[in-house]
Amino acid sequence: MKQLKVFADRMSQPSRAVIIFCKINGIDFEEVRIDLRKGDHKSKEYREINPMGQVPAIVDGSFKLFESHAILRHIACIFPGVSDHWYPADVFNRAKINSILDWHHSNLRRGSTTFVQSTILAPAVGLPLNPQAACEAEKVILSSLSIIESIWLKGNARFLLGNPQPSIADLSLVCEIMQFEVLSENDRERILGPYPKTLQWIENVKNETNPHFEEAHNVLYRFKAKQRSKQGSLGGLPAKL
Amino acid sequence: MKQLKVFADRMSQPSRAVIIFCKINGIDFEEVRIDLRKGDHKSKEYREINPMGQVPAIVDGSFKLFESHAILRHIACIFPGVSDHWYPADVFNRAKINSILDWHHSNLRRGSTTFVQSTILAPAVGLPLNPQAACEAEKVILSSLSIIESIWLKGNARFLLGNPQPSIADLSLVCEIMQFEVLSENDRERILGPYPKTLQWIENVKNETNPHFEEAHNVLYRFKAKQRSKQGSLGGLPAKL
Repeated sequence: MKQLKVFADRMSQPSRAVIIFCKINGIDFEEVRIDLRKGDHKSKEYREINPMGQVPAIVDGSFKLFESHAILRHIACIFPGVSDHWYPADVFNRAKINSILDWHHSNLRRGSTTFVQSTILAPAVGLPLNPQAACEAEKVILSSLSIIESIWLKGNARFLLGNPQPSIADLSLVCEIMQFEVLSENDRERILGPYPKTLQWIENVKNETNPHFEEAHNVLYRFKAKQRSKQGSLGGLPAKL
Repeated sequence: MKQLKVFADRMSQPSRAVIIFCKINGIDFEEVRIDLRKGDHKSKEYREINPMGQVPAIVDGSFKLFESHAILRHIACIFPGVSDHWYPADVFNRAKINSILDWHHSNLRRGSTTFVQSTILAPAVGLPLNPQAACEAEKVILSSLSIIESIWLKGNARFLLGNPQPSIADLSLVCEIMQFEVLSENDRERILGPYPKTLQWIENVKNETNPHFEEAHNVLYRFKAKQRSKQGSLGGLPAKL
């Protein structure tokens, strides 16, 4: 019997992080799709699971939990098959990973979600583009990427903190950056182009977690292809929104 | 010899949470003041401790750490004198506390810091008031307080999650709300007035952590008194900024 249920929409970056984490660690779980575009997350039924109406959330027997970082930490602690490098038992290494995860909320994540919402997602839900919000969000993203490269990927680090194997912080942050796949090629190139270490780090995380990483991102690649085909028929989106 | 150093400015809510936490648990530490108004956080020296240039940060021997939630978790784990209720060893209780701490970043904290910056702090650093940002931030605060009351303080809960004693989540969130002390009386009353459970919860956390709670907040009360006296000489600030 599958005990663990993961409520997720793979278009959401923290949902993908939790799904990839479960798969790479061989955890037996049931993925329950909460379709954000259909408003499944707002249903009374889903709010019984996560009153915040967000994804992901998990149910393990009678235990319910939301917030992806809390979920990743929890799964790492309760499933004995999870390798130590994901969330080390050593309190000092663990504290450094917690520090990155906490930092993430008000920095990379804040910039990334605002940028994607103000450019790509706004028109999809009938809202106007918001170039000012996008411009400010871009500054937050660039500052966040500079910090990642100069502090946590300094030297020839393969993973954050110079670790030889990835942690839940690597997975969470890389899934966040992968959201830029849905942006116009110009936006994505302008934002990520100047950060070669970040691009290499994304590849390292992919390589350590494939085939699950690519499989979880397929929905994003399909969305991207659809966007490109729309842009083609519209003569392309402006380079700078 | 005092091992642990806490770099803090008591005007910062996460700084106060860490200081109160150390004091209530009888941890021997040295408080090193990083005066935000004087720009101490931007100095080269301090950036060696916290490259983000924010407070609080800790140094324990050769180990450095920033991000207040990571610091609170870490101190709870490495100092054996810390009572279990602050950050329970039980993984299920711990996960629920992590979930609140993670939620805090993009909700109550985001709303609170934006509101205080857009109303009180902007003029102090020569920036104009930003009523639109304040208005949007207020919505985030009110929604966050509603969630706290209806989910984590439901029934007759003394502390979050209905716990009989406070956790690091209670301390972090209450220190955040205490920042509203610097607001005009009208703003504070309009925001907090409709949330009697929240007001009672603040009192509960104060009572469990005094005299350290009030002592750590003295600087805030002095700032408030100064603001009030300025407002008096200016004929009062508008009720709604």
